[in-house]
Amino acid sequence: MEELDKLPGEPYSSRIRARFWITGERGGYVGIGRIELLENIVRYGSISRAAKEMGMSYKKAWKLIDELNQMSDKPLVVKVQGGKQGGGATLTESGDALVKQFRVFEKQLAAFLQQASLEIER
Amino acid sequence: MEELDKLPGEPYSSRIRARFWITGERGGYVGIGRIELLENIVRYGSISRAAKEMGMSYKKAWKLIDELNQMSDKPLVVKVQGGKQGGGATLTESGDALVKQFRVFEKQLAAFLQQASLEIER
Repeated sequence: MEELDKLPGEPYSSRIRARFWITGERGGYVGIGRIELLENIVRYGSISRAAKEMGMSYKKAWKLIDELNQMSDKPLVVKVQGGKQGGGATLTESGDALVKQFRVFEKQLAAFLQQASLEIER
Repeated sequence: MEELDKLPGEPYSSRIRARFWITGERGGYVGIGRIELLENIVRYGSISRAAKEMGMSYKKAWKLIDELNQMSDKPLVVKVQGGKQGGGATLTESGDALVKQFRVFEKQLAAFLQQASLEIER
């Protein structure tokens, strides 16, 4: 027997794995990877530090943030003055709201998938 | 402005895109791509023809089918005798049932995402 592939998606339930992406009013999208980037910007107060912790290049992180900031007419991430390395970053109210919305919906989706998994196992 | 990336997942609703994978009792998984392969095997009665129509190599199709056949203790795809090119393939009852289960759940998920999209747009 050949080895089975690594499973895709997130293990939200026993028999159904999934990924989802919330799209912006003006285009673009945010999925789990970008949400984790936003959460790490909150945690570390810095884009470079957040990127580093995720093994992501600063350039890549900036590209993602640039895209995220185009999702609606309000930016999600802004630079802030000060700090040791001369400038950090933080989420705007819209950024906070999007992260919260994503995580709340994720819980609802997991509950839905868990119910459907029971049907599959029946 | 940089161009926004191509959107990931399937457009199940206006503001939430998604992908999902049903996992097997014994491991492995089936997502939309593998379901389409199974549906094309039904349509064309042949793995080589199904693969060709999908721009997939025969080797790749066989690898996927081998994995699919390891999901549970019953195979999903079996070879059948006869036909011009000397042998085709068809789905077993388990294979048919899995395709149907996937597509039925997909409709339920789309309805769930459409409802959640309305909340996001509110």
